Amino acid sequence: MNTGEMRVSAGALYAFSRNVLAALALPEADAQLGAENLVWANLRGVDSHGVNRLPWLVALAGDGHLNPRPEIRILRETPAIALIDGDRGLGAVTATFAMRRSIEKARTMGIGWSVLTNTVTPLAMGFYSEQAMAEGMIGIAVTYGGRNTVPYGARATGLHNGPISIAVPAARRRPPLLDMATSVVAQGKLEVAQARGVSIPEGWALDAEGNPSTDPNNWSMLLPFGTYKGSGLSFMLECLTGILAGDPMMGPQLLGKPRDSRHRQNSLLAAIDISLFTDIDDFRSNVDDLVDGVKGLPAADGVDEILVPGEPEDRMRAERERAGIPLPEGTLRGLQEVSQRLGIEMPAD
Amino acid sequence: MNTGEMRVSAGALYAFSRNVLAALALPEADAQLGAENLVWANLRGVDSHGVNRLPWLVALAGDGHLNPRPEIRILRETPAIALIDGDRGLGAVTATFAMRRSIEKARTMGIGWSVLTNTVTPLAMGFYSEQAMAEGMIGIAVTYGGRNTVPYGARATGLHNGPISIAVPAARRRPPLLDMATSVVAQGKLEVAQARGVSIPEGWALDAEGNPSTDPNNWSMLLPFGTYKGSGLSFMLECLTGILAGDPMMGPQLLGKPRDSRHRQNSLLAAIDISLFTDIDDFRSNVDDLVDGVKGLPAADGVDEILVPGEPEDRMRAERERAGIPLPEGTLRGLQEVSQRLGIEMPAD
Repeated sequence: MNTGEMRVSAGALYAFSRNVLAALALPEADAQLGAENLVWANLRGVDSHGVNRLPWLVALAGDGHLNPRPEIRILRETPAIALIDGDRGLGAVTATFAMRRSIEKARTMGIGWSVLTNTVTPLAMGFYSEQAMAEGMIGIAVTYGGRNTVPYGARATGLHNGPISIAVPAARRRPPLLDMATSVVAQGKLEVAQARGVSIPEGWALDAEGNPSTDPNNWSMLLPFGTYKGSGLSFMLECLTGILAGDPMMGPQLLGKPRDSRHRQNSLLAAIDISLFTDIDDFRSNVDDLVDGVKGLPAADGVDEILVPGEPEDRMRAERERAGIPLPEGTLRGLQEVSQRLGIEMPAD
Repeated sequence: MNTGEMRVSAGALYAFSRNVLAALALPEADAQLGAENLVWANLRGVDSHGVNRLPWLVALAGDGHLNPRPEIRILRETPAIALIDGDRGLGAVTATFAMRRSIEKARTMGIGWSVLTNTVTPLAMGFYSEQAMAEGMIGIAVTYGGRNTVPYGARATGLHNGPISIAVPAARRRPPLLDMATSVVAQGKLEVAQARGVSIPEGWALDAEGNPSTDPNNWSMLLPFGTYKGSGLSFMLECLTGILAGDPMMGPQLLGKPRDSRHRQNSLLAAIDISLFTDIDDFRSNVDDLVDGVKGLPAADGVDEILVPGEPEDRMRAERERAGIPLPEGTLRGLQEVSQRLGIEMPAD
């Protein structure tokens, strides 16, 4: 562990986060869900979407961007789809609402497809695809926010690195979970390089002038994963979220058209009920076979073990449940400020 | 044009393809659809999925893998989903059937999600996502077949480079169309390198022993695009197609379990009716704005113009509609064999 870091148990971080969110006037159940969402990310090593976001959420609440008691409304609905207005609620609350709606619809229709608009970022999308997986369904979750990613061929941002997550149930094996940004790496990995003072690999980012950068202190824009393919996928995710919800994130901003500049995102939360397609036990054991088959292949030079989607994060979770979650100095400082401002005791253990 | 190539008009290639498929005992309407599918790919420059496949389709019909007069059956259905058995029919026929079913469902449900099993490969998936787009819908099309791609970290194949296609309608702009394999490049690009005798860029493929190869005459396995991200996406596409249909493509083969070894694929054909979410004219003009915004960004060094998904292929189409489709020597030879075997006149102009 680096100097200035400390390890805190998931339980203590959860209690702290819940108290902070409750102090922002969220109802108790919503504060719990929000805390669960943050600690879920930290446990899995996705530290860019964990408790480090608490100071920012406090600021969003202060500025009126985050509505602690949203009236979530269903704007359009059929037995299979919903368009849901999150009323600027916490993403964990609004996206869970949307995924629950999709799960209910999937039980009779085979699929539920909810588009969520006007929400604070739902952060780690795997949290929601796993909600469907836990019901024996396939979960799909996407979110899309502001400009931070460079379209293929450009030297300026024009896309979001909108993440896509897919979770499927298994039997013996732990359920595979894909949860990936459409940039080469999420911003969090660049921040880690910055904190450690190590150079960024080529192809991750451009500087503010649009030139390739490997300097951890001079990067500004993310590059799409898989060059034109990731760029094209991100382009389509904006169509499937903001544009389908009637709240485009990119176009108006790129063209200088008037738009509401408050923080918000648009998301897709979908569930597929496997049992309406095939036998659920067959599905689970076929997923096991896929995992076994892939893991049993000969490994490339320098690779100890082939890992399937979600496996590195599951191992991190096992380790952090045992040893606690390491909080770097910057995160600790942010939590201390929140602690003092709201009069909430810091997590101690 | 290289020596040995000739250009043939789309119309002549269409007529030839239709005659070949009709000679395989396909009903006239199905032969037309199959011919349209092949020429659509050639016009867009996707020559790996065009008329070069005719000799293979003839062979599949001879071996009983391709059923010229399938009884397409709906195995499971709700108002929003369908599981469809293609009865080993031509992919253009079975996947169009499935997409049409999804389009019908989407009109009332907002979404239609068809999983198609037991089909000959539907080839270029953009052909089907565009069918939904032409109805003012978002189209999504995926297909998944045999092992040809190396999972991240392995040195042997264990995934298919299953393509994913998404099409959205626009207003002034031509409709964006994403249509991409989940390998770095489709096999066709390696075959082109081989035909031209130029080396393969690093990171595209491994040789038969699982070592990285840049030799155009010594490659065997495709590498996933975007390293672990493309690999994870491909893993999930098998779950969304073969495993969801109850006909897993990878697991049984990797584990040496008994399975039907006949050629077949599993596909996903989905449609989303935009008008049940938002105003369709708003959607179209917001897609225009996204295209305008992205194309209006400053271009990277060495880039003349930023292109959005589908734009390179649309330009190729315009050029080939005017000047004809270039057929390399190998493709011509294959068509000549088919021509002689079935007694069908070669396309002449």
